[in-house]
Amino acid sequence: MFDFTITARDPHTAARVGVFQTPHGLLTTPVFAPVGTQATVKTLTSRDLGELGASLVLSNTYHLYLRPGTALIADFGGLHSFMGWPGPMLTDSGGFQVFSLAQMRKVSPDGVIFRSHIDGSLHRFTPESAVRAQEDLGADIIMCLDECAEPLNRKYNEEALVRTHAWAKRCQAAQRRHDQALFGIVQGGIFPDLRVESARTLAALDFLGYAVGGLSVGETKDQMYATLDLTVPELPAEKPRYLMGVGAPEDIVEAVARGIDIFDCALPTRVARNGGLLTQAGRLNLRNARYAADPLPVEPGCECYTCQHFSRAYLRHLFKAEEILGLHLATVHNVHFMLQLMAEIRAHIAAGTFAAFQETFLAGYQLPDQEVRHAQRAARKARRQASGGG
Amino acid sequence: MFDFTITARDPHTAARVGVFQTPHGLLTTPVFAPVGTQATVKTLTSRDLGELGASLVLSNTYHLYLRPGTALIADFGGLHSFMGWPGPMLTDSGGFQVFSLAQMRKVSPDGVIFRSHIDGSLHRFTPESAVRAQEDLGADIIMCLDECAEPLNRKYNEEALVRTHAWAKRCQAAQRRHDQALFGIVQGGIFPDLRVESARTLAALDFLGYAVGGLSVGETKDQMYATLDLTVPELPAEKPRYLMGVGAPEDIVEAVARGIDIFDCALPTRVARNGGLLTQAGRLNLRNARYAADPLPVEPGCECYTCQHFSRAYLRHLFKAEEILGLHLATVHNVHFMLQLMAEIRAHIAAGTFAAFQETFLAGYQLPDQEVRHAQRAARKARRQASGGG
Repeated sequence: MFDFTITARDPHTAARVGVFQTPHGLLTTPVFAPVGTQATVKTLTSRDLGELGASLVLSNTYHLYLRPGTALIADFGGLHSFMGWPGPMLTDSGGFQVFSLAQMRKVSPDGVIFRSHIDGSLHRFTPESAVRAQEDLGADIIMCLDECAEPLNRKYNEEALVRTHAWAKRCQAAQRRHDQALFGIVQGGIFPDLRVESARTLAALDFLGYAVGGLSVGETKDQMYATLDLTVPELPAEKPRYLMGVGAPEDIVEAVARGIDIFDCALPTRVARNGGLLTQAGRLNLRNARYAADPLPVEPGCECYTCQHFSRAYLRHLFKAEEILGLHLATVHNVHFMLQLMAEIRAHIAAGTFAAFQETFLAGYQLPDQEVRHAQRAARKARRQASGGG
Repeated sequence: MFDFTITARDPHTAARVGVFQTPHGLLTTPVFAPVGTQATVKTLTSRDLGELGASLVLSNTYHLYLRPGTALIADFGGLHSFMGWPGPMLTDSGGFQVFSLAQMRKVSPDGVIFRSHIDGSLHRFTPESAVRAQEDLGADIIMCLDECAEPLNRKYNEEALVRTHAWAKRCQAAQRRHDQALFGIVQGGIFPDLRVESARTLAALDFLGYAVGGLSVGETKDQMYATLDLTVPELPAEKPRYLMGVGAPEDIVEAVARGIDIFDCALPTRVARNGGLLTQAGRLNLRNARYAADPLPVEPGCECYTCQHFSRAYLRHLFKAEEILGLHLATVHNVHFMLQLMAEIRAHIAAGTFAAFQETFLAGYQLPDQEVRHAQRAARKARRQASGGG
């Protein structure tokens, strides 16, 4: 049911093209999943997603467990029918949100107790309940409950890893539905030995696929890439590999080169709603006054609905006037950009030209100033922690 | 260029079907124009509007004059190309918003000075500048600057009417583009003699069409209908008649019966964004807990995208989770409802069955409780003013 076939390998990098068979259709990898946190990719209909060429959509178990409740969605035949998305879906376990969003949390070997960020109510996730919730949701790819530790904190990562590995086994044992591919999640922060230990431990459990978690959460880009360099080779080569929550264009290109097959990230849709439009040259900020009378589309030559019909001036007007249509049109463009990028990546891997594409793309793609500053801050913090023996 | 041909008349009421030719296409009347205040019908793309069967779209000159500026839109070739709507458009003169939205206003025979509701900046509209702004925008149907007085205040209506009539002549004289149909606007509040005087004065000016303004702004529904009863017969029978800003389903059916051809109203799109969904039985409030697990579409049998794909439970979830998609899907349904209602109205007029349709529709369509209470309050206020000689 979950056959994964690698159909092309790049001769110069670890990049590969594959076809992953799921109950709701084939995924051609490397694939990017737009994030539909609350059973909707913000501002887009299912029809929009289909027309944009999305093949995989992610939803968040934590959010749907709290509202409207996974049991209610099960009564509607699962997420696919509830939200009207007929294609492949992926749900996370809820673990990441418990550790990043919930108001209070108390971790024990058994699981995690937390308060809802919505109403403060008390809840508990265990490996078993996380699997059960995801079985209610019915996504094609589901995830083990894991603990995402602060990436630079060695002691916390050591302790969390023990739980993450024990929970992975319990998730495997708890799984009742076999039309869902359960993936294990490698953790271990930026620590090479922990990452290798985690990858090997999970590889031995023979999951249908493997995720790399705990990245893009505070470490530098170099640390992220270095972690992938040593983690990915430890994962079974014939299984799909999923880099959780990573999806800035430059990170996707770098991670594909390191052998990652599946991505999800809220960044393209979130920055769209802030007026940040992705282009080959980097991010364009629609709120900038320079676009007030600009007749060009966001990216000349782009074939998305937004660029085919509207000027930067019109889009800027919509943002200045706080019109919802602006959020929608910007999201359409950014999702198109990401899916187009993935299609180009796949074509270049198949043609053996991925390494050259990687170089050209990264040379042309300028990071936003604030991200450069953020990366510099993170690098300084990492150096301080390293020299201080943190 | 603006030929208006009446193709069917109802045998029992003043309802009629017509075809109004405009530079951007034919309008089959009675027609409802969704409101695109700021050069966008909130949450809908032009493609959505086309697929929903919208033929006429309204934009507000006041808003576009303030932001992004009518001159900028002129540089883009007008509203049609700026917002990507290829079909017929209508703009108001800005007068109504100056009298309802702007922070301060000072009226003189020359025009009106007001402060922007956005930034408090000072502006002036004159009949000439209102026409010029609308020529910049380039809509197919444009309106004279008028003064919309409080409908129950006799003295104010008398004074305002003098200005409205003088301004109508000045608008006519100021018009330079003749690919736009300039409509005169009848005012006069709820006062029969003023309404008749206004209709006759404007009829003598031989506009290409006539609007009835100043209704649905505080009077009772009975007062509105009574005003139409005596105003419409005074308007040239062979010209299109436009009831400004009126668009509750029950009011449209009543006004069509009195001979109105064109409608616009923000109500269907505004209530949609509050979770109010229009159905044959009245308004359904999606936020109501009774819909939390309801698998039915908003209106069984409805052919809109929303009803064809999503349950009330899913839509309610989107509203509770404050997801933008909920606003979009609700808007799609309500605009579909209005355009479908207009299509049914036209079919019934053509078939000679409109009177029966009117009776059946109004019997089945229940007004929301708060509207009933509002109407009762307005009626009491009107009675008090009448008995007090107000």
